[in-house]
Amino acid sequence: MLIPVILSGGAGTRLWPVSREGHPKPFMTLPDGQSLLGKTYRRAAGLLDGWGDIVTVTNREYYFQSKDHYHDAQMARHRGHFLLEPTGRNTAPAIAAAALSLQALHGDEAIMVVMPADHLIVNVEALQSAVEHAVELARAGYLVTFGVKPTAPETGFGYIETGAPLDDKGAATVQRFVEKPDLQTATHYLESGHFLWNSGMFCFSVATLLAELQVHAPELLEQTRACMADSAPVETGGCLQQELSPTLFAEITDISIDYALMERSNKVAVVPAGFDWSDIGSWSALAALIAPDAQNNRASGDAVFVDSHNNFVQSEGRLVAAVGVDNLIIVDTADAVLVAHADRAQDVRRVAKQLKADKHEAYRLHRTVSRPWGTYTVLEEGPRFKIKRIVVKPGGKLSLQMHHHRNEHWVVVEGMAKVTNNGTGTHLVAKNESTFIAAGHKHRLENPGVIDLVIIEVQSGEYLGEDDIVRFEDQYGRTV
Amino acid sequence: MLIPVILSGGAGTRLWPVSREGHPKPFMTLPDGQSLLGKTYRRAAGLLDGWGDIVTVTNREYYFQSKDHYHDAQMARHRGHFLLEPTGRNTAPAIAAAALSLQALHGDEAIMVVMPADHLIVNVEALQSAVEHAVELARAGYLVTFGVKPTAPETGFGYIETGAPLDDKGAATVQRFVEKPDLQTATHYLESGHFLWNSGMFCFSVATLLAELQVHAPELLEQTRACMADSAPVETGGCLQQELSPTLFAEITDISIDYALMERSNKVAVVPAGFDWSDIGSWSALAALIAPDAQNNRASGDAVFVDSHNNFVQSEGRLVAAVGVDNLIIVDTADAVLVAHADRAQDVRRVAKQLKADKHEAYRLHRTVSRPWGTYTVLEEGPRFKIKRIVVKPGGKLSLQMHHHRNEHWVVVEGMAKVTNNGTGTHLVAKNESTFIAAGHKHRLENPGVIDLVIIEVQSGEYLGEDDIVRFEDQYGRTV
Repeated sequence: MLIPVILSGGAGTRLWPVSREGHPKPFMTLPDGQSLLGKTYRRAAGLLDGWGDIVTVTNREYYFQSKDHYHDAQMARHRGHFLLEPTGRNTAPAIAAAALSLQALHGDEAIMVVMPADHLIVNVEALQSAVEHAVELARAGYLVTFGVKPTAPETGFGYIETGAPLDDKGAATVQRFVEKPDLQTATHYLESGHFLWNSGMFCFSVATLLAELQVHAPELLEQTRACMADSAPVETGGCLQQELSPTLFAEITDISIDYALMERSNKVAVVPAGFDWSDIGSWSALAALIAPDAQNNRASGDAVFVDSHNNFVQSEGRLVAAVGVDNLIIVDTADAVLVAHADRAQDVRRVAKQLKADKHEAYRLHRTVSRPWGTYTVLEEGPRFKIKRIVVKPGGKLSLQMHHHRNEHWVVVEGMAKVTNNGTGTHLVAKNESTFIAAGHKHRLENPGVIDLVIIEVQSGEYLGEDDIVRFEDQYGRTV
Repeated sequence: MLIPVILSGGAGTRLWPVSREGHPKPFMTLPDGQSLLGKTYRRAAGLLDGWGDIVTVTNREYYFQSKDHYHDAQMARHRGHFLLEPTGRNTAPAIAAAALSLQALHGDEAIMVVMPADHLIVNVEALQSAVEHAVELARAGYLVTFGVKPTAPETGFGYIETGAPLDDKGAATVQRFVEKPDLQTATHYLESGHFLWNSGMFCFSVATLLAELQVHAPELLEQTRACMADSAPVETGGCLQQELSPTLFAEITDISIDYALMERSNKVAVVPAGFDWSDIGSWSALAALIAPDAQNNRASGDAVFVDSHNNFVQSEGRLVAAVGVDNLIIVDTADAVLVAHADRAQDVRRVAKQLKADKHEAYRLHRTVSRPWGTYTVLEEGPRFKIKRIVVKPGGKLSLQMHHHRNEHWVVVEGMAKVTNNGTGTHLVAKNESTFIAAGHKHRLENPGVIDLVIIEVQSGEYLGEDDIVRFEDQYGRTV
């Protein structure tokens, strides 16, 4: 039994301002309209022979948003299984937790294929054949890594030095893992022909993984076992949801699977990854996905170039004009603009760091914010008023709530709203109709229909902070 | 009698994306909140000894917007007199028209002080004393120019070579005018000490100007006289409004006052401009107004700099982050972003030119559009809906109108609205109340109050173009 395990974490601060704490890298949408997470899900589904389970380990804050992305990628065809982390603890605890969960559900012989959610692989057939190859070795008791043939002396990746051949299809033992090298070392690796990029993907049986963790990381395994004993799965909405115990998960050592196990075990093998692979580690990697024009400028969105070369522009809606500039990365979002030199793509994380230190909202949130029931976008704010566009998914239902300080005026722009207001029962509000919620009135908004409900909300009052809310009932468990 | 004549024209395409056809350079707001036109008006008022007339020559499209800017600068203290051009015909026709109009109203002895609306002068006292000096010479029959002592070998300005001294206060005859020189020539001019920048300001009596035009540009004077005979002033709203005949004005030669007269007349004098002066010709000139930080970055708005130097950022609301970049001009507006190398500030006009050729809306309009009654801003557009914020000035009144294809839903956010809807008389709509205008219904919106009326308009329908409007009555003459 083959089970894809998607690791979906990582703030992706080098991809600010699109990737943010509230909307991290896996949720980023590529020019084809698919998110990295959605693409990873599709790849995972492609490995399954028909119906099957797909495990996702992610932060519990991202549960509903992840389900939305899977929904867009037709998750209904597979059983979702979510392990929800209270905090990020790196890859070793995540993979150990997944293995213990799968042992309980499917037994020792289940084969895990671990896939980071923020990588891009276009050639899915080559991936599938590499995974078939890895599964053979996993069944033979190996911890299998996927090594990518380097095409440049990259200093941002880890490398794998190959050892003795294991078969005639290119698999080998692993001599050693090496951390991100300097340029000289990377050039040497590239020339030697014995080094591969460490793709961060793995394949092993539950039995092999747990046995090797018992040998090389017994404390971590014990901690994870204790946590899982207190984190039973719950069947909810066609999904298996396993909320990891916050206290016990926090006690597990924060360490990567490479450090904790791969660099120590002698059962590690590497199969050649015959597929294209990008870790989408920075804006340069995203730029490479776009075809250049005659001046080697690449644009996703509306752009005008005057005497400019080798630039990358990504714009969500505005026009970007470049005059006499070269080698720039220009990324425009609803509330922030990045202008970086192409050679400094790695340093974009320093902006995110500085914004976090300054407690600037542009570190955490976009103007469009995801909620379990849909999204809201702040269109305009001023003294005593705020205007939002609210999109409620079919079946979505905001909590039964009340505000002390603000009145809300709702105009339905698309779809049909079901509104509860101040104990007068519920009524339907159709497109281009409106309704008014006075401060102090208990109310609820839901979408009873099958298409998105879009509402323009005009708030007025003395205080309009998001924290002026009392929740009485909530179908997403947010009343606590 | 001294009469300031403000020439307010010029698209200012080098200051795109803030300056646009629908909102040109004189309307640009500086960091202190005052527009260039407002500042020019204040300077003009400062030249008057108490109450007096201020003449403005501008395109008729800018009439209401200009009055708004003057209103903010307390125009009520002076009598406004507008000469409204149907099209731009350069400075000679504008000045000749103003002179003929003033001759009719105030006689030959009136002294005109011609001031472009898009220059910046901070030291108003020095300006006043230079004007006093110029007035003496104007009374003695000179066409007086104001020469600015050059501080750098500027290639973007015209120069004046001084001739024989005319008094002991630095006035001189003019040897010659020279066009924008190359860098080598400009350096020579700077070193010689005999050259001054041509500020584009002038001072002369109506009599001298008309007499010299009669000698050096008789055809232009004749054309302008014919035009003015068909362009009588009308007293309207406390203002003298003189709409220049479209057919006759279009026949006048398109030529600058420098070419038509100054370079030919032997009655030209120059007085030293003891004031600071900037023509705000490009973003570099605007950048110079802002104090730099330790890395010589200058920012107006929210900006974060990482390893970046000598940059200028102007942002209207968004956060701009710069990483590893030097010598850039970054200008962010609601619908467009400019990134230009500082050495290429002059080439920003090429963006505007390209956008104009492409018929891109960002050449002509901002997301906020001025109307005689106030402004509207498109907040959001989508299939079958559009959301606008509408601001109506106190006393402002939209036309009595009807749309065939769209319904309009109005929510009052600030102030009080007076609404006419489908022949049911008028009713008041207060803050946080709303009303609905169905397609096909004649309606009208006005602000009967003394503070701005702010409305959120949600339009829905199959066609939402601005051209779906039938106007029945309009207090701004737009029914034709």
